[in-house]
Amino acid sequence: MAQLLVLYKTPADPAAFDRHYFDRHVPLAKAIPGLRRYEVSQGPVASPAGETGLHLVAILHFDSVADIQAAFASPEGQAAAADVASFATGGADMLIVETRSL
Amino acid sequence: MAQLLVLYKTPADPAAFDRHYFDRHVPLAKAIPGLRRYEVSQGPVASPAGETGLHLVAILHFDSVADIQAAFASPEGQAAAADVASFATGGADMLIVETRSL
Repeated sequence: MAQLLVLYKTPADPAAFDRHYFDRHVPLAKAIPGLRRYEVSQGPVASPAGETGLHLVAILHFDSVADIQAAFASPEGQAAAADVASFATGGADMLIVETRSL
Repeated sequence: MAQLLVLYKTPADPAAFDRHYFDRHVPLAKAIPGLRRYEVSQGPVASPAGETGLHLVAILHFDSVADIQAAFASPEGQAAAADVASFATGGADMLIVETRSL
């Protein structure tokens, strides 16, 4: 199993971010080939250390890291990635990890 | 559902980190009350943007954010949190999120 974690930093206009994210970005992301499950945070992104500076975390599940790489290379993945630049005004960090359960 | 994401930055001695993490920290963390599932990254923590500066990502699943807060307050959670300082020489960021599937 592999996960793409997208850590969206707090944008200039959180309400506009949310509208764009759920109305326009989610449908684009759901079309990405190989996507098995798509989770998003709801409510604040918290930390025991205090403020995180993050607005939303998305967790996209795939079968493998190779499938994530193929997803980024696909037209649907490129459309979703290009869309990020249009609403993630605070920036976003993406992490790609192969995972196993302990 | 809620997740505790632990982003371990690259430590001074990755091999020593791994030994401590899997031999000592994992058993402490698995004892935390309310923990439903425990995933770790294997292999590099990658990013389309290049180097992430991260060595390992742990994803701990709980039923709710309240359960994560209770876990941190428990003796087992406090032992696991105290242990982190003994091996995470590069530091670690912790994120607590309530999640929903789209």
